[in-house]
Amino acid sequence: MRWITLAAGALWLGTAPLGAQDKVTERATPASVVAASTPAEWTAIDPSDLLVMQLAPDARGARRQVIVQLVPPPFSQGWVGNVRTLARAHWWDGTSVYRVVDNWVAQWGDGEDEPRRAKPLPAGITKVPAMDFTAPLPCKVYLFQKKVLKEECDPAVTPLEGIDPYVLKGQTGFAAGWPVAFALEGDGNRIWPTHCYGTVGVARDLENTGTGAELYAVIGQPPRQLDRNIAIVGRVIEGIENLSTLPRGKGEAGVYKDAALRVPILSARLGSELPAAEQPRFEYLASTSKSFADYVHVKANRGDGFYKAPAGGIDVCNVGVPIRRVGAK
Amino acid sequence: MRWITLAAGALWLGTAPLGAQDKVTERATPASVVAASTPAEWTAIDPSDLLVMQLAPDARGARRQVIVQLVPPPFSQGWVGNVRTLARAHWWDGTSVYRVVDNWVAQWGDGEDEPRRAKPLPAGITKVPAMDFTAPLPCKVYLFQKKVLKEECDPAVTPLEGIDPYVLKGQTGFAAGWPVAFALEGDGNRIWPTHCYGTVGVARDLENTGTGAELYAVIGQPPRQLDRNIAIVGRVIEGIENLSTLPRGKGEAGVYKDAALRVPILSARLGSELPAAEQPRFEYLASTSKSFADYVHVKANRGDGFYKAPAGGIDVCNVGVPIRRVGAK
Repeated sequence: MRWITLAAGALWLGTAPLGAQDKVTERATPASVVAASTPAEWTAIDPSDLLVMQLAPDARGARRQVIVQLVPPPFSQGWVGNVRTLARAHWWDGTSVYRVVDNWVAQWGDGEDEPRRAKPLPAGITKVPAMDFTAPLPCKVYLFQKKVLKEECDPAVTPLEGIDPYVLKGQTGFAAGWPVAFALEGDGNRIWPTHCYGTVGVARDLENTGTGAELYAVIGQPPRQLDRNIAIVGRVIEGIENLSTLPRGKGEAGVYKDAALRVPILSARLGSELPAAEQPRFEYLASTSKSFADYVHVKANRGDGFYKAPAGGIDVCNVGVPIRRVGAK
Repeated sequence: MRWITLAAGALWLGTAPLGAQDKVTERATPASVVAASTPAEWTAIDPSDLLVMQLAPDARGARRQVIVQLVPPPFSQGWVGNVRTLARAHWWDGTSVYRVVDNWVAQWGDGEDEPRRAKPLPAGITKVPAMDFTAPLPCKVYLFQKKVLKEECDPAVTPLEGIDPYVLKGQTGFAAGWPVAFALEGDGNRIWPTHCYGTVGVARDLENTGTGAELYAVIGQPPRQLDRNIAIVGRVIEGIENLSTLPRGKGEAGVYKDAALRVPILSARLGSELPAAEQPRFEYLASTSKSFADYVHVKANRGDGFYKAPAGGIDVCNVGVPIRRVGAK
């Protein structure tokens, strides 16, 4: 078992690269690393950064809740602001999940984008330029012996060693607990969140960037080709199965041909809008922590009894940042 | 838009590397490339290489069929032989889909492995060694200017340019229409199929390699860490939504705690066992064809109106080999 070698020209930013930390025991599992983490290594997610959606109950009468964590700065903040505005206006109440495509996405809203939209949007929705699909890298970088070095990114960017096929002149990694990619391009150093299972993005037409009213969640293989082509505003951190198990649509582009299949959205609220006792509390394992580095190392080099041939590498989506509930559900 | 550069030491086998073909038009889409392919570029899938499973109808009474294509030689043929034996013995009839884990797998069989199995296996089931998780590379290789060259693999192996984080000393590509990885290792040159969405593998316990009686299909992000650690015997080529939409299990490891949730398997037959008129006919776009090379190129370099920032690369699972029905369903 060995860590993958760093490719020439790969980027190094922020903390020590993952995999360079003290060796963890060979029998460690991702779960055992998380269990051994310290409370100080976890970061609370503010309820104001959650979108809590109540879908209509299922055929057995069971409650269906989906909780989305909104992506933090510097990512997609124009669209995230629109999502907050839409939630505060209760705009999604009475809309539906209307499109589900296997190994692709589940999508919700009122099913039309401007100018055909049936339900007017609330005041304050802004139009966001396509360049905001990515953000300026939140630190200056310099080159040293073909490596890019910088230690003061905010948020800190922790690189994942190894090359990613979707980032030609850059690297993947983690920022504030989110999978990201970053690159040195001709037009500046940019960083962006990556499309993984559960990622929530802003549906758009060919010639606009979307408002945030029509959202989708990825329910299959990571569609990394969408990175930098569409705005990512969040990720489902609880209840993804309430979207991934929905019947696949048979209409054009997977829209439900039978309108009766649409799943009504009863309400969508920011976590901070709920009564204090009902606000969901979550925390994530900080991507700058020792335990997170160990976790990535163990996931890339599985050495417990089941695995006979550790891969020696992993892709940014398959890492799966640990996120957990705080207190009772 | 440019194709990713080939890394030093990358492997080249079989046909011309993908991406080196004539440039396709910038507005081409994966669908337009497939539409422009010629009939000669498609290879028929023999019905004897299909496992056709009938699940119990859903709550609305709709038929639920799942069709698995079995992996061809040189891959996993010991387990594939067991699957054929089990199908011919009608062993799966009356068993069930009993385990479903979100973003992981749906699993079926009788729910127990040796020695606790309730339903005896038919005669002729063989025990397959773990070394058969991979196969010898079906051609000799030689080195030339740090590149590995060989032109007579059988089946032909078409490399995918670019580095894959799960293959340290090798490369991914396609063989007989299947996503594969291959490597030059200390113990010989090996090749193996990769775990992608829809891949069907052989569930096993810690200390055995599984028989093929308990199978799973991947219903989430590609669990590439399982490559070389478990036998891949097929892929779902139709009806994956009949597995991916099933309720997620709440018991240990995602097994249905409530036995009433188990989905009965009414029958599982090799396609060739069905009456001639009912035998499903499929074909795949040959991975050695010009159109397949164009298809990969276009998927890695999306240039149609929606995509403003083509990735310039793709991973082996995200390619999605085109497979289609021949004749009426």
